[in-house]
Amino acid sequence: MLQLYFSPMACSLASRIALMEAGLDAQYHQVHLLTKTIVDDGSDFHGVAAKGAVPVLVLENGERLTESAAVLQYIADLKPETRLAPPLGDPDRYRLQEWLSFVGAEIHKAFLFPTFWYKDDGSLAKPRARIAQTLSVPATHLADREFLVGNRFTVADAHLAWALLLLRPAGVDIAQWPSLSAYLERMQARPRVREAIATEMALRKQMTA
Amino acid sequence: MLQLYFSPMACSLASRIALMEAGLDAQYHQVHLLTKTIVDDGSDFHGVAAKGAVPVLVLENGERLTESAAVLQYIADLKPETRLAPPLGDPDRYRLQEWLSFVGAEIHKAFLFPTFWYKDDGSLAKPRARIAQTLSVPATHLADREFLVGNRFTVADAHLAWALLLLRPAGVDIAQWPSLSAYLERMQARPRVREAIATEMALRKQMTA
Ligand SMILES: N[C@@H](CCC(=O)N[C@@H](CS)C(=O)NCC(=O)O)C(=O)O
Ligand SMILES: N[C@@H](CCC(=O)N[C@@H](CS)C(=O)NCC(=O)O)C(=O)O
Repeated sequence: MLQLYFSPMACSLASRIALMEAGLDAQYHQVHLLTKTIVDDGSDFHGVAAKGAVPVLVLENGERLTESAAVLQYIADLKPETRLAPPLGDPDRYRLQEWLSFVGAEIHKAFLFPTFWYKDDGSLAKPRARIAQTLSVPATHLADREFLVGNRFTVADAHLAWALLLLRPAGVDIAQWPSLSAYLERMQARPRVREAIATEMALRKQMTA
Repeated sequence: MLQLYFSPMACSLASRIALMEAGLDAQYHQVHLLTKTIVDDGSDFHGVAAKGAVPVLVLENGERLTESAAVLQYIADLKPETRLAPPLGDPDRYRLQEWLSFVGAEIHKAFLFPTFWYKDDGSLAKPRARIAQTLSVPATHLADREFLVGNRFTVADAHLAWALLLLRPAGVDIAQWPSLSAYLERMQARPRVREAIATEMALRKQMTA
């Protein structure tokens, strides 16, 4: 069975959403990212992944795959009939890769990551000054579209929905971009997305309790 | 003909290397990233790409593709016989995507981008404190491998070679990781890579002259 190393509400949420939308069973292992320990048994997470970051997907053959863009495409391709990614060879596949890169680099690494991990104003002023321009890109794209790529839900939507969810605790009110807040509401109305978020929010509350 | 919007020695260099390694002709348009103008005619680069960032690849059908991870895979797939990316459906394709994401997010967006664009110490201390850990990932991987993926040159190598080249002006001496400096030397010994770098270094010198 597939296994996903995750931390509640971290970027690995997108991979959980993808697994659930694909209808794939998986074992989920919670990781404590500050201590780099696996919650199951307290062992060192670096033993699973030298990067010390989630998501890590353990494949059926035991290999480990990291990086959301790769993990999300891998999951989608396990169930091509769910169309969670445009088929291999379809021109829209590059649009999917474009959005996965944009969310992973421009929203996550350039803004969310420093906001949650650096936590001091000196590091954050410059990233914060850029985020409105960054968000205008998906806001414009989604002004007349229901999904990021090809008129159906794909793993790029799982990735962006996660990023938009985290913008609020990062101090950015997406109500400034009506197309983004309407999009996030649409995504959260999907039963699997709602269930994935509810599961991780409950685990998150336990952590801080 | 394909067209690439680039800036000398910016991350678009990886796309130039990919085009040259693929043996693909392209028109190259230089962009001035600070003023967001196209050098050919002084027109506004935002007219080409709302993001205002390179690379932008104009496809044969006139569509524009952004984000290095997508552009590099698109170029590789135009010439599958050059094996610049593992074939669609090959398990190594996900390894390629993993490295493209890692270079684009963890080396480029988390470190090189703030170093060159934010330029003040307050923003840079935290990213700088992480870069050694980040670089240990490819350093370990390349300790006993010639290339990132599957024993041959791929577009992931074009991406990483660019990032390693930029680390020196960013103040990181990669001699600390002998496997990385040996790798960069191997990459620079490839005639097309050397030619791509020489072309952009010459344009870069003109800019600062
Ligand atoms: N580029 C990676 C980013 C992974 C990442 O930054 N994960 C965060 C959680 S959202 C993490 O585990 N951080 C812990 C650390 O980097 O020490 C991806 O797209 O998967
Ligand atoms: N995630 C993008 C990053 C593109 C990027 O940051 N390009 C830089 C040059 S290396 C740029 O054009 N910066 C200008 C700007 O962002 O204003 C990719 O991987 O292609």
